[in-house]
Amino acid sequence: MSEAGPQAGDRALTGAEAVVATLLGCGIDTCIANPGTSELHLVAAFDRIPGVRCILGLAEGVVTGAADGYGRMSDRPAVTLLHCGPGLANGLANLHNARRAATPVVNIVGDHTIRHLAHDPPLAADIESWARPVSAWYRSASDPATVGADVAEAVRAALEPPGRIATLVLPADVAWSGGATAGGPMQPPPPAPAEPETVAAAARVLRGGGRVALLLGGRALRAGALAEAHRVAAATGAEIWAAAHNARVERGRGRHPVSRLPYAVDEALAALAGLDHLVLVAAAAPVAFFQHPGKPSRLVSDHCAVHTLVRPGEAVEEALRALGDAVGARPVPPPDPSPPAAPGDGPLTPESVAALLAARLPEDAIVADEGVSFGRRLFNLTRDAARHDWLQLTGGAIGLGPPMAAGAALAAPGRRVVSLQADGAALYSLQALWTQARERLDVTTLIFANRSYAILRTELANVGAAAGPIANALVDLSRPAPDWVRLAEGFGVEAARADTLAGLDRLLARANGRPGPFLIEVVP
Amino acid sequence: MSEAGPQAGDRALTGAEAVVATLLGCGIDTCIANPGTSELHLVAAFDRIPGVRCILGLAEGVVTGAADGYGRMSDRPAVTLLHCGPGLANGLANLHNARRAATPVVNIVGDHTIRHLAHDPPLAADIESWARPVSAWYRSASDPATVGADVAEAVRAALEPPGRIATLVLPADVAWSGGATAGGPMQPPPPAPAEPETVAAAARVLRGGGRVALLLGGRALRAGALAEAHRVAAATGAEIWAAAHNARVERGRGRHPVSRLPYAVDEALAALAGLDHLVLVAAAAPVAFFQHPGKPSRLVSDHCAVHTLVRPGEAVEEALRALGDAVGARPVPPPDPSPPAAPGDGPLTPESVAALLAARLPEDAIVADEGVSFGRRLFNLTRDAARHDWLQLTGGAIGLGPPMAAGAALAAPGRRVVSLQADGAALYSLQALWTQARERLDVTTLIFANRSYAILRTELANVGAAAGPIANALVDLSRPAPDWVRLAEGFGVEAARADTLAGLDRLLARANGRPGPFLIEVVP
Repeated sequence: MSEAGPQAGDRALTGAEAVVATLLGCGIDTCIANPGTSELHLVAAFDRIPGVRCILGLAEGVVTGAADGYGRMSDRPAVTLLHCGPGLANGLANLHNARRAATPVVNIVGDHTIRHLAHDPPLAADIESWARPVSAWYRSASDPATVGADVAEAVRAALEPPGRIATLVLPADVAWSGGATAGGPMQPPPPAPAEPETVAAAARVLRGGGRVALLLGGRALRAGALAEAHRVAAATGAEIWAAAHNARVERGRGRHPVSRLPYAVDEALAALAGLDHLVLVAAAAPVAFFQHPGKPSRLVSDHCAVHTLVRPGEAVEEALRALGDAVGARPVPPPDPSPPAAPGDGPLTPESVAALLAARLPEDAIVADEGVSFGRRLFNLTRDAARHDWLQLTGGAIGLGPPMAAGAALAAPGRRVVSLQADGAALYSLQALWTQARERLDVTTLIFANRSYAILRTELANVGAAAGPIANALVDLSRPAPDWVRLAEGFGVEAARADTLAGLDRLLARANGRPGPFLIEVVP
Repeated sequence: MSEAGPQAGDRALTGAEAVVATLLGCGIDTCIANPGTSELHLVAAFDRIPGVRCILGLAEGVVTGAADGYGRMSDRPAVTLLHCGPGLANGLANLHNARRAATPVVNIVGDHTIRHLAHDPPLAADIESWARPVSAWYRSASDPATVGADVAEAVRAALEPPGRIATLVLPADVAWSGGATAGGPMQPPPPAPAEPETVAAAARVLRGGGRVALLLGGRALRAGALAEAHRVAAATGAEIWAAAHNARVERGRGRHPVSRLPYAVDEALAALAGLDHLVLVAAAAPVAFFQHPGKPSRLVSDHCAVHTLVRPGEAVEEALRALGDAVGARPVPPPDPSPPAAPGDGPLTPESVAALLAARLPEDAIVADEGVSFGRRLFNLTRDAARHDWLQLTGGAIGLGPPMAAGAALAAPGRRVVSLQADGAALYSLQALWTQARERLDVTTLIFANRSYAILRTELANVGAAAGPIANALVDLSRPAPDWVRLAEGFGVEAARADTLAGLDRLLARANGRPGPFLIEVVP
């Protein structure tokens, strides 16, 4: 390797070195890893070719969930390093969430040597069957000579708008053999412009009368696009909704607000009732999270016409701007609310916690929201908090929150991450607390400790199922109640319990006023 | 439903009720569950048709790992209840282990209604792609009228020798709709007898001279088969080895002992060097766990002829008995060693811990072994302990131990489970401690807290990779060191730390002398 470091065309590299050199050449500087034996040459290559920060996760769900949080905040892929088929399998649920969030992620899955697989050793598994459902791009590297190009293609594929998952299998012998060369970075295609005809059609809808709403998803929830949407709305009287589950919403004071469609089917139906037209802006047509007996899947009435202005992956802000131009709209400034006052003491309810958060959220915070039942109303009730980003669970696979918070903190040093976390969901991936401690990440976690799968209590009624002793036991987390202070401390995260609003306020000040992670068990 | 409970042919049932009634009719009385909304009708049906014990796991890896432990000890399937594709995905790694162990497991994966899937709601995923690699039998139920038969077939498939994984997807509307009927139990085929020619051929090998070894796996490691293998060995001078990774070995005083093939490639090669013949008895030809540069995959030399007496799923004990008859062997009693004396105080090493365990293992204990580096030598060194069963990690997907211990305890009430657990592996599935506490399972966990992925330190040298700061950090678990006492207490399990052999002895007595779980952090 030359003193200037490995270059494309330099065949003196091992496959593992070519992987690292290519990642660096593509601008990827973060690897979130849970390696095993078959990945050790790649691990060693990270030492030989410095520049990639390697973060250890104690389980693969932590790794992939952190990659999701990282990608959402940086709009760049982190690379994950996973150990064979079972390592990938453990990370699939959070990759499912990342796929639904359109987060760019590059997975590198180490595997046995190609010859060794023929002997069906214990860890051998059908990696491709497991990877394909979450991966827009999949390849198994077969040759050190081409593995650099494989990596460059994986990165390009992950960056294809709006953001996708690329999975590259790296057999151990491809990693350890020589004759490899770094791949040159490949340019992903830019977001395609929306069709002029779809913009014109949307403009006709907006000028045509009746009740019209814009439904925003994906990149339509970034500040610039939201300003354009509000410009359209002000000129036409259209309503604006955000989809129910969004990867990232830029919001807070100084930005244009947007409310989420409700999760509950009846509330969502009511919100959309009476609409004549719904215009999709990088969003899918709204659908119930679950179908309940006797209730519809589609949340818009048959009377409502659904139009698409721009699809995910197309140039969203530009399409909204063109639409604003087409309807002759003028810019509108964001509202200018007063900073909310902190509430006094009182019991811990979703409303009181929301009021406290609205007052106390640090400027430029990142909210990682897996609040589920207790947390559901927090989004709409914190509209006037200081400027922040809000990340939600997009794929419904619970256990994303603690890893996503860690990944967001890795991507945005200097910004406080506030992790709003249902207790049942946190129990899937609490191991992420250790990564938060190890990397001294600025994460304040609020565990909403209602000590049950509270959402399922509600859903039992929604689906018309009677709750007997077995059902009640299967949604109960109180026997025994997990002690979140001990669990956090066990992973090296300082922690305390709040059972009043004043207590929570004091702990929030303590947590947000110091570097590193802190966990607050919120006991309503 | 009649007072006698639902019967086959009674179409007054919902699909969910038919599932439960069929399970009961098939003799399945344990369901290990992590349900969500789409499974709530089935949850409610467990209340309406009592008889199945439902056990909650906080994450799906706990559920499937516990099903593996349960199936190994009962030779009957537990049913798992998993929530949609992501719920299955979280359980795949331990299903991979269960597949390698030939453990019977029936997975029921709840899913959206069939019509709702067409709208691609957030949780929708390609369940089939994820399930197939671990499932010998897979079906998605499509009709309440046939779901009872589906369940009966799944149970039969799981019980097909030597034991397999069956996965049934249960859409919510199939569960909640009426017109269903319970399926009648279906008889799995009995184990096929070994071919007389293979027995005769093995007898010729054993009488033919040269160095011969029997390699035992699967059901060949139950006490009856081991006695037959020793009978053959005594008559012919053959050696006996157990495979490196086994689902269940019946061993201890009063039984015929067997040593495991070493995990380390060089040690395994040395153990098998000079063999002229290897006879496989429900075992696969030995293969390295990982291929290392310049080392072979196959662990027998090219000189050694490999023969198969009996395949997994065939009648193993009978084949060994026939072989013994063919070589004119007479029964040999098991050895009669003295109970090992407990060692005095001293530092905690694999050897000293093994000596203590050999002396202190309770009669009829079940050892759940995920000891990895620290624990590797414990098996061979505890040969003369009181009678017990020893369960190992079969598929190499770490994170099995704590759930497997819980499942074994569920299957074998009254027997103490001793969970020998590497710390790095335990961190994948420590949530199982909560299930141990909730169900008051008699599990004594020893966490070998070397605070590193120690196996990877060794493997770095084995694969010839130099360890720099990044590699050292990625195998390090000491910054911060997980505090296992707090983690266990956080999940409701009493715990303490041992840093001397005498301290461990005292804590073992305390743990094994009381009902319920106890965790000992063993700090070498």
